[in-house]
Amino acid sequence: MSDLAVGVDLGGTAVKVGLVDRSGTILATTRRETDAKLGPGHVLQEIIQGIRNVVDSDTQLCAVGIGAPGSVTLDRTTVIQPPNFPGWQRVNLSEEVGSGLKNRWPVIVDNDANVAALGSAFFGAGRPFGSFIMITLGTGVGGAIIHEGRLFRGTTGSAGEIGHVSIDYNGPMAAAGIPGVVEAYVGQRFLSEHARLYLKAHPDSMVFKITEGKDYKLDPRILAQAAEKGDSAATEILAWAGHKLGWGLGSVVNVLDIRKIIVGGGVSAAGDLILGPARTALMQAVMPGMRDGVEIIRETLCNKVGMLGAAQMAFDHAG
Amino acid sequence: MSDLAVGVDLGGTAVKVGLVDRSGTILATTRRETDAKLGPGHVLQEIIQGIRNVVDSDTQLCAVGIGAPGSVTLDRTTVIQPPNFPGWQRVNLSEEVGSGLKNRWPVIVDNDANVAALGSAFFGAGRPFGSFIMITLGTGVGGAIIHEGRLFRGTTGSAGEIGHVSIDYNGPMAAAGIPGVVEAYVGQRFLSEHARLYLKAHPDSMVFKITEGKDYKLDPRILAQAAEKGDSAATEILAWAGHKLGWGLGSVVNVLDIRKIIVGGGVSAAGDLILGPARTALMQAVMPGMRDGVEIIRETLCNKVGMLGAAQMAFDHAG
Repeated sequence: MSDLAVGVDLGGTAVKVGLVDRSGTILATTRRETDAKLGPGHVLQEIIQGIRNVVDSDTQLCAVGIGAPGSVTLDRTTVIQPPNFPGWQRVNLSEEVGSGLKNRWPVIVDNDANVAALGSAFFGAGRPFGSFIMITLGTGVGGAIIHEGRLFRGTTGSAGEIGHVSIDYNGPMAAAGIPGVVEAYVGQRFLSEHARLYLKAHPDSMVFKITEGKDYKLDPRILAQAAEKGDSAATEILAWAGHKLGWGLGSVVNVLDIRKIIVGGGVSAAGDLILGPARTALMQAVMPGMRDGVEIIRETLCNKVGMLGAAQMAFDHAG
Repeated sequence: MSDLAVGVDLGGTAVKVGLVDRSGTILATTRRETDAKLGPGHVLQEIIQGIRNVVDSDTQLCAVGIGAPGSVTLDRTTVIQPPNFPGWQRVNLSEEVGSGLKNRWPVIVDNDANVAALGSAFFGAGRPFGSFIMITLGTGVGGAIIHEGRLFRGTTGSAGEIGHVSIDYNGPMAAAGIPGVVEAYVGQRFLSEHARLYLKAHPDSMVFKITEGKDYKLDPRILAQAAEKGDSAATEILAWAGHKLGWGLGSVVNVLDIRKIIVGGGVSAAGDLILGPARTALMQAVMPGMRDGVEIIRETLCNKVGMLGAAQMAFDHAG
């Protein structure tokens, strides 16, 4: 049995590939542009080329693991309609990537949030906990559930859609068209839009100095930068988003009775500016008898968590 | 190994006790007033006397199972602060009832919603499904999760609090003090209060004829009776409650990817007047990719589901 696996983190911007050993050490890594707009054929080539960059044809691997956006079938082969990947309906990544590598190694695929949760459980902030809720704050809001050391996958493998818990049946909509879902407040795209509207009433905000008036730059990092300098408008926007996140997580804790929540992804870079208010709202939304031990923890592996989790999935698959 | 067990359904109004065989046939049954206001000592005696009514001291039993309100410890012995049971902080029902029966049989306790879910899974509407969400609509709103044939209990045994999913962070509060939880709309006490307010603006409603002006009678059965006769105010109140229920269930489906929902309890007697609008809202709140197979089903065992589930827990315990 080989002690090596390849983990692939397929994102909307970049394909990250790592050669990883069982201890979670990354022995080689590469990053390629996804260029999803060029269609599935192009993206498949980028994945295959990325893997070739870190292994030789005679490398002994357990398997290749891929974390992908969108739904993944329960047999962990096929990605269904990943958002922001034009032209993808169903793509059997196991077959396509496998055959591109002359079927030397098995290829296993799972949803990016599930894979991040595995990475956290084995190598990251999730290590101390048998059960935790993973939430990834990026363009969208992904989620996954680790219960007693294993992924809780539900009936078809789609469990953990914490970004689609609705906290206001009359609220704003995210991509899936459901009012008031967590993603519609905290997903990067939506948070930036809320910030844009809010800042119209705050023309003196420091944010405008930082962005030099270019509002396409209005991402959570810019807001955090202004907030850290004491800008009250930016602070309020991030606190508002944190409140919505915490409120949604409260319902999830009440349903699962899993009390550790690990937060990863780009938006979490705003740190306690979002997570502080999220903690306050979370405690209010959890039933009084279930508040003991409830905690929100930041993932520390940052952008490596997906790659490491994908590699861990490959190790698990090999046994 | 005996083929008999005793199931006890401990409710705020009545203690129901059944002698049950492994096929789910109830061989003997008794019902006693709970009179919870007389304190734990009295209720314990009612439980013990109820069990003595259906068994002799030489009856061969697997065990006694008890479904109780409130939280139950993970070791399934002790009830913690059951609502509407004055004077109960922690009561070890296993020990107290066991010793009251001279420790002839083991006594296992679980939350009433968990026990109802077991009853449904083995003898009721849940039989065809490996996984389902159980929701019981009564004074409060209870919930439980069956996943791949087993209860999903979470970290401490409190999982499944579907009545405490919040659908509006600015909404009305139920007993636990959390705004906008499902129970604050659909729990019998709260639904009656909403009806009372709503009907103030509808003095011609048929409801007032049925109750002869006594608004303490404003329970879901009365509303259903009026609605079935075409009363639009009563129909609207039930539809409003159903919408809130369905919306909350949508978030639960998105988190669990469990798509069958079984509804039991008194309020469900209002049937499709509540469940029809609940289905519509549920479908809107579930992510488009997860709507296949989503279904709300009424439990058909009615008030026997708790007793049968408690007996099944006893059989499971004996192996």
